[in-house]
Amino acid sequence: MMSDISSTIMEVSKTLQRVNMYPFFDAAHYILMCSIVKEDTAQSAGTSAFSRRHPFACWLASMLMCFSGSILGNLLIGEPLVTPFKHHRDILLATAIWYVINYFPFDLAYKVAKFAPVHLVVCIVKEVHRTRKIYDGVGVAYKLYPNAYLIVIAIGVFKGSGYLEMRLFERLIRGIWIPASNEFLQPSFATKASVFISLAFLLEKIGNVPSTHENIFLGAIMFLVYFKLSSMIIGIHDPFLPFENIFCSLFLGGLADALKRATTSGKPIQASAAPNNNGSSSTAGKTKEKKNE
Amino acid sequence: MMSDISSTIMEVSKTLQRVNMYPFFDAAHYILMCSIVKEDTAQSAGTSAFSRRHPFACWLASMLMCFSGSILGNLLIGEPLVTPFKHHRDILLATAIWYVINYFPFDLAYKVAKFAPVHLVVCIVKEVHRTRKIYDGVGVAYKLYPNAYLIVIAIGVFKGSGYLEMRLFERLIRGIWIPASNEFLQPSFATKASVFISLAFLLEKIGNVPSTHENIFLGAIMFLVYFKLSSMIIGIHDPFLPFENIFCSLFLGGLADALKRATTSGKPIQASAAPNNNGSSSTAGKTKEKKNE
Amino acid sequence: MMSDISSTIMEVSKTLQRVNMYPFFDAAHYILMCSIVKEDTAQSAGTSAFSRRHPFACWLASMLMCFSGSILGNLLIGEPLVTPFKHHRDILLATAIWYVINYFPFDLAYKVAKFAPVHLVVCIVKEVHRTRKIYDGVGVAYKLYPNAYLIVIAIGVFKGSGYLEMRLFERLIRGIWIPASNEFLQPSFATKASVFISLAFLLEKIGNVPSTHENIFLGAIMFLVYFKLSSMIIGIHDPFLPFENIFCSLFLGGLADALKRATTSGKPIQASAAPNNNGSSSTAGKTKEKKNE
Repeated sequence: MMSDISSTIMEVSKTLQRVNMYPFFDAAHYILMCSIVKEDTAQSAGTSAFSRRHPFACWLASMLMCFSGSILGNLLIGEPLVTPFKHHRDILLATAIWYVINYFPFDLAYKVAKFAPVHLVVCIVKEVHRTRKIYDGVGVAYKLYPNAYLIVIAIGVFKGSGYLEMRLFERLIRGIWIPASNEFLQPSFATKASVFISLAFLLEKIGNVPSTHENIFLGAIMFLVYFKLSSMIIGIHDPFLPFENIFCSLFLGGLADALKRATTSGKPIQASAAPNNNGSSSTAGKTKEKKNE
Repeated sequence: MMSDISSTIMEVSKTLQRVNMYPFFDAAHYILMCSIVKEDTAQSAGTSAFSRRHPFACWLASMLMCFSGSILGNLLIGEPLVTPFKHHRDILLATAIWYVINYFPFDLAYKVAKFAPVHLVVCIVKEVHRTRKIYDGVGVAYKLYPNAYLIVIAIGVFKGSGYLEMRLFERLIRGIWIPASNEFLQPSFATKASVFISLAFLLEKIGNVPSTHENIFLGAIMFLVYFKLSSMIIGIHDPFLPFENIFCSLFLGGLADALKRATTSGKPIQASAAPNNNGSSSTAGKTKEKKNE
Repeated sequence: MMSDISSTIMEVSKTLQRVNMYPFFDAAHYILMCSIVKEDTAQSAGTSAFSRRHPFACWLASMLMCFSGSILGNLLIGEPLVTPFKHHRDILLATAIWYVINYFPFDLAYKVAKFAPVHLVVCIVKEVHRTRKIYDGVGVAYKLYPNAYLIVIAIGVFKGSGYLEMRLFERLIRGIWIPASNEFLQPSFATKASVFISLAFLLEKIGNVPSTHENIFLGAIMFLVYFKLSSMIIGIHDPFLPFENIFCSLFLGGLADALKRATTSGKPIQASAAPNNNGSSSTAGKTKEKKNE
């Protein structure tokens, strides 16, 4: 079954790669971004009335999310922050989607976008969009800083999943400030996958990968779509977690703490959660978040 | 009586337009900015002792407010943030006014600045200053981004009333953080008027306005001064509100919610405040603010 | 005894000035920065487990502190923020030190770095590093803005002690937000000394100082090391304080308030703490901090 899904996805992604980015891929991205803002608003304010009371803040927050990749990327490389707002076509499409998602009678547009089959398609299209954005970001950054691999990856990640880092500021626009829930503290799978794919594209640029660009690009899309589907259907949310746990246990304190525990036996150490450090981070983050709200 | 005021204002503004910007117009702006910081300090700290205990933070906060338009504008278009601090003359004038407002014996300077006739003159001069700043901002932005109308208007607004957006950071300098009271959440009249005037200047630049530059400029000053006076004397604080309410009722959820209410009768919906959405926003903002402090 | 210390320091600093910046001076800076993050983490989270649970946030916070001078300086003058991350050599050294400080078995590396004699050497080396950074910053800023003395000093201060201003954002990365404890509110001695030394270098650039560059540079190092030692050994933390108190009493409200008290006798005024304004600022800041947490 898994190989069936993979091959189907490969054909779909090949077809999709030829399509122009503008109307549909961007639209899928904007739909997901506006939905995130709408859902976060409902969650934190308790009602859906935010878009009615503060339409401008709602619009600005949605736009920040829609163009977060460019805005954060430009901030890092010293370009004007307003560059994404130069293109009326993009702004108009994003605004139209924001309007329909938030103000359509009976909330119909939002419900349709969240209807399982539609949502699935939107998510898959979004992953293709993400791959392209990462590829563009890595390309631009590699031209500007050919020897600064860290910067290239950072730009790739911001282009691919900058909206997760932007949430802090997007919430600030809506009058909400949750410092304890930032993406750096608990990186989500989207961020980790963006790092992974940026790295692949960077290695391709350097010339260290024994494969064609076509294969790497398709592989990246398949990787993202595959794990998106497995997250939505099977419920595996972070396939990087086991590797991280092993790495953390070996290098980031696990071994050192075990050594310490072994020598100072009898006295239980507070940092006993070290072996499953990343697994417990989400709960730790949530308790912090609650305290802050 | 109203036409008398208008004509007097026109003559005054014509005379003022010939005067050099530097000493008096800038001074009026700095007086208002330093007063805002002083008042906000007194309000949030409870005493007037902040300027005694933290003179540097007080000075920096006042400077950020005085030069907020340039700082925010430069941030958006990727220019150095420190540019406004290049001109010693401006900094010295702003510092002198900050010193006199905060440290004059018996608080005399501040009291004189707040004395009704003086305050009236300062406010009118400030509105002329605002118009000029908006015009300059629109001009610069139009040169940089001739086809990006949104950016042109944003720069114009930041130049004209950027101090309202800067308050969040000015307060942060003073150790206060009120995310729920930002200008995007509840735009004030100054911001809305700046949008309106930026739009007028932009239309003039594009060439869509059947009027001379002189008329539009004077009209903008008159518009600002007129509504400033009506706010100070008659107490009309936001003449845009009725239009906004109608617009929101029609397009931003009012109609959609009414439709929903009509079909799901019996069950009262929480978002029943939709028709007077903007009117209730200020109270909503205030309760949030209180929670946050 | 004091002249002995001074002469020894002069010889040491002369020797150190010839050494290349990269491995040892930078290392001392990175050790202190990573230690600050580690200590602040332990203090605010209560345990040393933060580096185990959130290794990436811990690393990013440490890197922001290590390269704070460049990042903040670049932000002010509109250069790309990522510039310091261009040099792999620096990043690798900083990362290695971060790793050793945080994850060495039995916390040995951190304890060695904090062992009094080692710490003393690290601190002295750091002061030499600071002097050089300030000198470089003043030089770059003076080239860009030869007539903007305020900007030159600001860049010098950010290069020399920008990590103190960066703490607000470094804490934000770690999910902590303490607006009431920012460097602008209660400038520490490091900031004040950086202002003083930037001013000296600026005066030298302008040509108003009757002394050679060699002397000024050595004087700055001696000044910093001398007061660092007196802070560590004798416990004098802020030698600027008496001068500030006199200045504040005379010009920043002290006299004005005394005048007011004299005329309105009988009624005690709340701002009676004015003469020792800076002395009481630290306690005022701390109570604010507690409220905010």
